[in-house]
Amino acid sequence: MSAPDPSPENAQRAELSPWPARKVRARDRDTKREAVIRAAARAFREHGFHNTSIDDIARALHVTKPTIYYYVANKEQLLFECFMAGLGQIRVAMARATQTRGAALARLRQVIARYAQAIASEYGWCMVRAEDQDLSPQMGAKIRLLKSEIDQGIRRLLREGMQDGSIQPCDPRMTAFAIAGALNWIAHWYRHDQSMSPADVGAAFERIFLEGLQPRPAPRRRRSPPAG
Amino acid sequence: MSAPDPSPENAQRAELSPWPARKVRARDRDTKREAVIRAAARAFREHGFHNTSIDDIARALHVTKPTIYYYVANKEQLLFECFMAGLGQIRVAMARATQTRGAALARLRQVIARYAQAIASEYGWCMVRAEDQDLSPQMGAKIRLLKSEIDQGIRRLLREGMQDGSIQPCDPRMTAFAIAGALNWIAHWYRHDQSMSPADVGAAFERIFLEGLQPRPAPRRRRSPPAG
Repeated sequence: MSAPDPSPENAQRAELSPWPARKVRARDRDTKREAVIRAAARAFREHGFHNTSIDDIARALHVTKPTIYYYVANKEQLLFECFMAGLGQIRVAMARATQTRGAALARLRQVIARYAQAIASEYGWCMVRAEDQDLSPQMGAKIRLLKSEIDQGIRRLLREGMQDGSIQPCDPRMTAFAIAGALNWIAHWYRHDQSMSPADVGAAFERIFLEGLQPRPAPRRRRSPPAG
Repeated sequence: MSAPDPSPENAQRAELSPWPARKVRARDRDTKREAVIRAAARAFREHGFHNTSIDDIARALHVTKPTIYYYVANKEQLLFECFMAGLGQIRVAMARATQTRGAALARLRQVIARYAQAIASEYGWCMVRAEDQDLSPQMGAKIRLLKSEIDQGIRRLLREGMQDGSIQPCDPRMTAFAIAGALNWIAHWYRHDQSMSPADVGAAFERIFLEGLQPRPAPRRRRSPPAG
């Protein structure tokens, strides 16, 4: 990670100075900051926010406490950054669904699948619990705003789907709550040592919401009960 | 509530003794105990478990702290009793679904509807959060066991539905998690001052899981996109 950049420009610089170039240092800093946030996400998920200290996170990374404080101001900011890291994945999926053309149902499936993967990631616990913890009022307000944006995005896709005929008539508010609830709940039961990958979970949830429980007549095939 | 029983037997007793009959006292005690648990459920939901004291609950009922301790041993037991009060409604629905005959889908709908109503009730918050709070290991274990029974009951209904043809092929574990997650999440967004009653929420969620998002061909009617 911290190996010097082997590009000719940097090789030349290295001859002039034993310190790495600014660009290399910036990249190195980002990598290390990400490692701090990831370690915090794991610790919070495993022991809870209140039972985790900055010392615990430093120990997990074999660094000192001041090293952690070089990247974040306090434990609250760490939780906030964990939330943002997970939410970022959903926001990317939502932006893509908003910008691309095509039936709204197909675009919503992508959002459901990526949302499920984000919650099954190491950041899932923080994403679902961050709001309940003792964050600053500013952080709490920001989290609520970003969550509301995702909620509104799902409702918009549902309305667009009803317009283009790809989604059957439904109450967008209730349906968005049902989808987000099922997805957020993944953080309560999913464990990384399970046989299913986050992508598998995403695919399973996508199918549940698309198909529903009631049997659908198979095209060109006679429906028969499965052999018992 | 505490008016003396007007039955002839009790009228006769009242002549003999100014104290209410044992049966009347037992009923009176149950009513009061229920009021204590209900007041606790409201306080926990509104202010959180850790921010609520026994004093707060006593004040809400215009009684003294020792009166509350006459009904429960401590705050943890109060939370446990709130959990049990809410779960009782789901357990009744599950027992009925297990004992009655008919297509499994129809029986599962009833469970979904009653489950949604229980979570939208004043006990919903306690039902969803109880496990995370600092309960005694025995209470925590009991709560996990009871939750697992409901989970297993839903999976069993899904398997029965696949057998009798009323539910289309699905992964019972994933589907039970999706249903329970969507229902449990109701505690995060439902407020009692809203226009929808708990029964309305139950009906909406029942429909979402039965139908799915993908349009179903309407019998004997040509499908056309809604007028935009």
